[in-house]
Amino acid sequence: MNRSFKEISGSVVAPRGFLASGVFCDIKRLGTGKGSDKGQKRDLALIVSEAPATVAGMFTTNQICAAPVKVCVERVKMGTARAVVINSGNANACTGKQGLRDAQEMVRYAERALNFPKGSVLVGSTGRIGVTLPMDNVRAGIIEACVELGSTHEHAAHAVEAIMTSDTRPKHIAVEFKLGSKTVRIGGICKGAGMIQPGMSDTGARPAAMPLHATMLCFITTDAVIEAKVLQSALREAVAQSFNRITVDGDMSTNDTVLVLANGLAGNKNIQHSTFNTQRRIFLSALNHVCLELAKMIVRDGEGVHRVVTVRVNGAKTVADADAAARAVANSPLVKTSWHGGDPNWGRIIDALGYSPAKIVEEKVDIGYSTANSKTILWSLKRGQPTKATFRQLCAAVAPKEFDLHINLNLGKAGAVIYAADLTEEYVDFNKGDVGDPGSLGG
Amino acid sequence: MNRSFKEISGSVVAPRGFLASGVFCDIKRLGTGKGSDKGQKRDLALIVSEAPATVAGMFTTNQICAAPVKVCVERVKMGTARAVVINSGNANACTGKQGLRDAQEMVRYAERALNFPKGSVLVGSTGRIGVTLPMDNVRAGIIEACVELGSTHEHAAHAVEAIMTSDTRPKHIAVEFKLGSKTVRIGGICKGAGMIQPGMSDTGARPAAMPLHATMLCFITTDAVIEAKVLQSALREAVAQSFNRITVDGDMSTNDTVLVLANGLAGNKNIQHSTFNTQRRIFLSALNHVCLELAKMIVRDGEGVHRVVTVRVNGAKTVADADAAARAVANSPLVKTSWHGGDPNWGRIIDALGYSPAKIVEEKVDIGYSTANSKTILWSLKRGQPTKATFRQLCAAVAPKEFDLHINLNLGKAGAVIYAADLTEEYVDFNKGDVGDPGSLGG
Repeated sequence: MNRSFKEISGSVVAPRGFLASGVFCDIKRLGTGKGSDKGQKRDLALIVSEAPATVAGMFTTNQICAAPVKVCVERVKMGTARAVVINSGNANACTGKQGLRDAQEMVRYAERALNFPKGSVLVGSTGRIGVTLPMDNVRAGIIEACVELGSTHEHAAHAVEAIMTSDTRPKHIAVEFKLGSKTVRIGGICKGAGMIQPGMSDTGARPAAMPLHATMLCFITTDAVIEAKVLQSALREAVAQSFNRITVDGDMSTNDTVLVLANGLAGNKNIQHSTFNTQRRIFLSALNHVCLELAKMIVRDGEGVHRVVTVRVNGAKTVADADAAARAVANSPLVKTSWHGGDPNWGRIIDALGYSPAKIVEEKVDIGYSTANSKTILWSLKRGQPTKATFRQLCAAVAPKEFDLHINLNLGKAGAVIYAADLTEEYVDFNKGDVGDPGSLGG
Repeated sequence: MNRSFKEISGSVVAPRGFLASGVFCDIKRLGTGKGSDKGQKRDLALIVSEAPATVAGMFTTNQICAAPVKVCVERVKMGTARAVVINSGNANACTGKQGLRDAQEMVRYAERALNFPKGSVLVGSTGRIGVTLPMDNVRAGIIEACVELGSTHEHAAHAVEAIMTSDTRPKHIAVEFKLGSKTVRIGGICKGAGMIQPGMSDTGARPAAMPLHATMLCFITTDAVIEAKVLQSALREAVAQSFNRITVDGDMSTNDTVLVLANGLAGNKNIQHSTFNTQRRIFLSALNHVCLELAKMIVRDGEGVHRVVTVRVNGAKTVADADAAARAVANSPLVKTSWHGGDPNWGRIIDALGYSPAKIVEEKVDIGYSTANSKTILWSLKRGQPTKATFRQLCAAVAPKEFDLHINLNLGKAGAVIYAADLTEEYVDFNKGDVGDPGSLGG
């Protein structure tokens, strides 16, 4: 692919005029003292733009929707923002009216601390469901996070750490590209490892062809000059092809959120609704890349995940069919355990296709494997019949840590891709929980 | 419940005039010699009625449908049968035209061996997908099974053993009841442990409110005098409330089959379409009991299952909503792993309800627990808010090997029940497969 952008370091502080921080304020009430100097994982992040920014957001379509999501949905409609405050350790979901008051206090407290106008701070939360936030700790954390703000890589790294829950690795990216004579940058951080099958929208309506289900949080910054409506439509498209195409366990969270702040400090020509030009395409392409790479990082770091499989369905009658077929395979416990075992078990794959809502004809189905992103496919099934590929060859095809599964239904021209993961003993062991720990992980 | 029937022993040979056998004929081609005297698990069963019987059947709605299912669907339409031949070790699914020829040969070979008229033998298969049957072995097995036929409990036990795959326990039941002055019996055997979420119908159309997905096989015998159409409608109702209400892993098989043969040797007054009387109700109640008990045995013996949870959703707007809500909870990997861990995690439950297609209002949801079939419920959540039940109390409620999960959506009057299982490391370990074993388990 001839890319118009290059990857750079710095994540959310790579674009001009963004500051970040991450601190420990004991949101889980571990009671082990406060301050990020105690060796505790940070749990409150702040991302701040030095200039007013246009904003766009995508949110979970789960009917059980956390308080911070409710607050963001309303605020994103205003089209501008200056900062995002994010906590881990507590999802502030299923916390009723108190939860909503707490989310509102978080943003107002941050606004006052930053001396920003009302309505200019957004909020994200992830962690336990059903427990109200320890607001004294949160307030102390917000003050400390404001003090700690900075634009070095270390500041960005602290922010990434602060949003992680069961993540084993920080997830971040930044890209740089030219719009005319101006250099523009996009940076992003995200978190998510379990309860992952986002189905986000910006209208509350579920995307078409989304059977659904994570907490994943993603915060993107850019110094592009871009209108809020254009930014929202670009984000909708990017999420549809990235975060809404991944699944770890098929569970959709109450808190899934993607936010983008664009502060315009790059000084490019304003990307407007009427701009049908190269500059707009370049921006979209870079944003798509940022979202897709972050989404794939979530799958690779999924709870207990050993193998990542890109399920590519083609030849479906409709896009909805292609999506349903890919998700049935990607979420089948029997298919996922066979991936874990390195077993090229096409019987389980065709079984899952058969019970999916998609139209399938046994005698037409092709199933094959390739190395990631390769077009050289080893077919195990052609038109419903086993090929001459040997069992040894097929085992070799499903042995790598990442491979592509190709399914052609040969019934039409529609296709869909789902980024999926295997199901391992570690996933079960991790999620069966520590009964000594009262409180629901998840949001 | 005031039951009009009592449980007896004898399973499929308890009703008058039924014979059974189970033999080893090396369908997996283990190459360890033939004959059931070699200590190998039997793999071919025969159930025979000494008199012509009316017949009814329910079959998988998976679009990928095994050859024996295709043969049975056609034959059950005739309304009468004399025998069923069943093999394990090979599902005869995804085996193309050869598979269909093999299934047809199985029934014809059995008809000739038994000297029964054409069209009077039915067939069931379970095991690997995508491998054609070793017909020499099957033919030898059928001959041996005919020789071995008998009506003792040992004969029935051999038949049960022969249909088992990953089952760790034989599953059988028989009941006896009075119709007028006559004693009538129903007996049944079944198998199934993984790939379990049946969605069977007798028309090929998926049942309403069935998101779907097992190989489970079930064979029921009765000496009742009952018209074929009445038997079919009774079976449809019984399966809707039993086998179609269970899920182990949410995967629906290519081979799910339930067959009933009614040979009329009890001599009761014919149960006809126009019979709206006590006798019909008694028969239905007994058949429902047989199907539900067999269905629950499948869940209890599910692959790696430690805990069985009956998910009872009430207060839904529609039955479809109640069913969708119950299945979302019953198939959520995060909910299932929390059951395994003995963790009363209502956050994951309400999360699954929220992403289900059912209408949910957070502020209305009640979630609670009881011992199996008890009406004394310990509520953990009422109207979306945690109750005063202590974490210790809730842990105790989810500690038993079987318990009921009660969900009231408080939005309407519709309800649904799903019999579900936890997700354990053993399930993953078992299903990740033995890569040294080329061939797809499953159907």
